[in-house]
Amino acid sequence: MRYCVIMCGGAGTRFWPFSRSSKPKQFLDFFGTGRSLLQMTVDRICPAVKPENIILVTNNQYKDIIKEQLPQIKESNILLEPARRNTAPCICWAAHHIAAMDPEAVIVNLPSDHLILKEPEFCQAIEEGFDFVEKGNRLLTLGIKPTAPHTGYGYIQQGTAEKEYPGIFKVKSFTEKPDHDMASLFVDSGEFFWNAGIFLWSAKAILEAFEKYSPEISQTLDAPSGVYATPKEPEFIERNFPDCINISIDYAIMEKASNVYVKTVEFGWSDLGAWKALYDSSPRTSEGNVTQNSKVITKDCSGSIFAAEGDKIIVAAGLKDYIVADTDKALLIYPMNEEQKIRNIVNDVKNRFGSDFV
Amino acid sequence: MRYCVIMCGGAGTRFWPFSRSSKPKQFLDFFGTGRSLLQMTVDRICPAVKPENIILVTNNQYKDIIKEQLPQIKESNILLEPARRNTAPCICWAAHHIAAMDPEAVIVNLPSDHLILKEPEFCQAIEEGFDFVEKGNRLLTLGIKPTAPHTGYGYIQQGTAEKEYPGIFKVKSFTEKPDHDMASLFVDSGEFFWNAGIFLWSAKAILEAFEKYSPEISQTLDAPSGVYATPKEPEFIERNFPDCINISIDYAIMEKASNVYVKTVEFGWSDLGAWKALYDSSPRTSEGNVTQNSKVITKDCSGSIFAAEGDKIIVAAGLKDYIVADTDKALLIYPMNEEQKIRNIVNDVKNRFGSDFV
Repeated sequence: MRYCVIMCGGAGTRFWPFSRSSKPKQFLDFFGTGRSLLQMTVDRICPAVKPENIILVTNNQYKDIIKEQLPQIKESNILLEPARRNTAPCICWAAHHIAAMDPEAVIVNLPSDHLILKEPEFCQAIEEGFDFVEKGNRLLTLGIKPTAPHTGYGYIQQGTAEKEYPGIFKVKSFTEKPDHDMASLFVDSGEFFWNAGIFLWSAKAILEAFEKYSPEISQTLDAPSGVYATPKEPEFIERNFPDCINISIDYAIMEKASNVYVKTVEFGWSDLGAWKALYDSSPRTSEGNVTQNSKVITKDCSGSIFAAEGDKIIVAAGLKDYIVADTDKALLIYPMNEEQKIRNIVNDVKNRFGSDFV
Repeated sequence: MRYCVIMCGGAGTRFWPFSRSSKPKQFLDFFGTGRSLLQMTVDRICPAVKPENIILVTNNQYKDIIKEQLPQIKESNILLEPARRNTAPCICWAAHHIAAMDPEAVIVNLPSDHLILKEPEFCQAIEEGFDFVEKGNRLLTLGIKPTAPHTGYGYIQQGTAEKEYPGIFKVKSFTEKPDHDMASLFVDSGEFFWNAGIFLWSAKAILEAFEKYSPEISQTLDAPSGVYATPKEPEFIERNFPDCINISIDYAIMEKASNVYVKTVEFGWSDLGAWKALYDSSPRTSEGNVTQNSKVITKDCSGSIFAAEGDKIIVAAGLKDYIVADTDKALLIYPMNEEQKIRNIVNDVKNRFGSDFV
C-alpha cells in the first residue's frame, strides 16, 4: 500500500512575527485562503494516498494544533518526537512504524511547509514516483528544475537516464548550498536540480539503507517485533529516540547510497523559506508590491511585501524592497535583502522582552 | 473672579491613526504618562483657576469622553456647540456665559492640545497676565519666543513696552504663516513671537471688542438677560449659534482691535501640530529616534518616531526620518517630511475603507 509521511515538527521563526515558536510556519494560513500550509500539503497528497495512510511526524508541543487542523487524521497516525533530531531519525522511525503495519509499503516523504502551485503535475509526479519505487530497491528524490541560481538550496546532479522511466535519472552528485558562481554554472548546465526534500521509497529499501549507511540510527531504533505500531511504541521511542544522532536524511543516507535516483519535475515549487521566497511566489500590484490579508495604500513603494492580520489598514510611503509584517504582538519593518538577520533579531526580542513575543 | 475657557472641540486627524475623529488628539495620552493632553491642560491651570471656574467648550460628540476624563468638572461647565464655527463664536459664547455669572470676571482662553514643558513659568505668566487684564480694557495674547523659523505658525510683532509690566508690549502686527525667508527675518529680528492661541481678558473687554469689531457674531449671540448660565441657555444656543460666521478669534478680533497686547514668554511650548512637532519636543534615543509606548528595536534607523499602542514590539531597520504609528486599526509608515500629505491619505482611507478607520 501507499503511505505518506509528512514532517511537521519544525519551529521556524524566519517569518516572525507571523510564525512564532508556538505556531510555526506550517500551521499558518499563509495566503489567506483559509487553509494552513500543512492542511494544503494533506489536501494535495490525498488523491494519491488515503487519509488513514498519512503519518504525521511532529514535536509533542504541536499535537493539539495538528488535531485541530487535521481532524481527518486519526490520533495513532501522529508520531510525537520526544526530541528534535533533524530528518534522518524521524524518517527511520516512520518507516519502522509503517513497515510494522505493512512490510510491502511504499512511502512518500513530504515537508509540510512548501508551496506547490501546479497540483496536477505534482500528483502525476508522485504517481510515477510510486510506480518507480514499487519496482525495487530504489531511493527516489524529486529534483525541481531551477529557475535561478539560488545559493540557499541543495543541488542534485543527474546522471544516466532510466530508459523505462522518462524523467528519472541516477544521481551523480549532491551539492549543498553552492556559492553564487557555482550555482550559476549548475543552472546553466541543465544537469542540476533543486533538492525539494520530497523522497519516495519502499519501507524495506529505506530501512536497508539505514542499516547500511547509518547503522547508529538503525541500531538505536531497532525494536523487537511487536513494538512498532502497537501500544508499546511510545514508550520505546521515549526511551531510545533521544539517543539518535542529530542528522539530516541527505547527509545520513542520500549522499552515501548507491541506489539513489532523481525524478526531475516542474510544478511551481517554493520552499517559502523566507519573505523573499514568499514575495517571489505571490502576485504583485502594479507598483510591484505584494499585499497579504490587509488593506494597503502605498505611495512610492515597490518591491515590498505588506502582511497584516485581520482587517487592519496599512498606509506606507517611500519603501523600496521592504518587509512590513504586522501582528497584534509585533511589527516588523525590515529591508528584504537583510532578512537573514531576522533570526538574530528574534533572539534579541526574546532576550529583551521574553519568549511571549517569539 | 478668574475663569478659564478651554477649547476642546477640534477634530484633528493629523495624528492618524492615533487620533481619529471619534477620539481626537486632545483626548489621547500622548506621552504615555497616564494623562491626556486635555487632562494635562486642566492640571496645569488648576493652581491659577479653581475647577468650578473652568469652562470647556466642545462639540456635542465629545461630551461623554470629557465627563470620563474630567470628573472634577461639573456638567453645567461643559458648553456643547451645536455646530463647528471656529474659535471666535465659541469664545464669545463662553464670555457671555461667564459674564452672566460674574460680570467682573477675567478669563484665560486655552487650547486643549498643546504641550508645555515648564509649568512654573507657565503659571507665573498666567498670574501676571491676569494681573494685567484685571487693570483695564485690554486684550492680552501670549507670544512664544521662537526657536526656529517655522512657517506653520502665526507671528506677533511687539511694539512699545508697557513700563509697569515687564515683558508686556503693545502689539504692532500679526502675520499668519509667513514663507521661510520672511520667518527667518522675523526670528532674527527678535521682535516677533509665535501666537500660541492663549488669550487673557476681562469678560467685559472681550464682549466690547466683539460689539466693535465683529458685530455680526455679537448680535447673533446677544441674548436677553436671564438666558446665559440658566436652563434657557442650551435652547438659545441651539437656535442661534449655527448662524454665527465661521471665523477665528485672530481674524475676528485680535488683528483689528487697538487694545491688543502681547506678553512674551518662554515655557517649552509646542502646539504638537503634527508628528514632526512631537518628534522635536520628545527625548531621543542615542540613534536619534523617538519611541513612544512601545518596545522598539532599531538598526540603522535615525530621525524617526515610533509609536504603538499598548505592549507591542516594533522591530525596524534602515528607516531615516520616518513616522511609524501603529494602532489596532491601522499602521502608518510615512516619511516625516511629507507628513502634510497624511491629511489626504486619511481622506483616501475614509473613501476606500469607510469612516470606521479614521
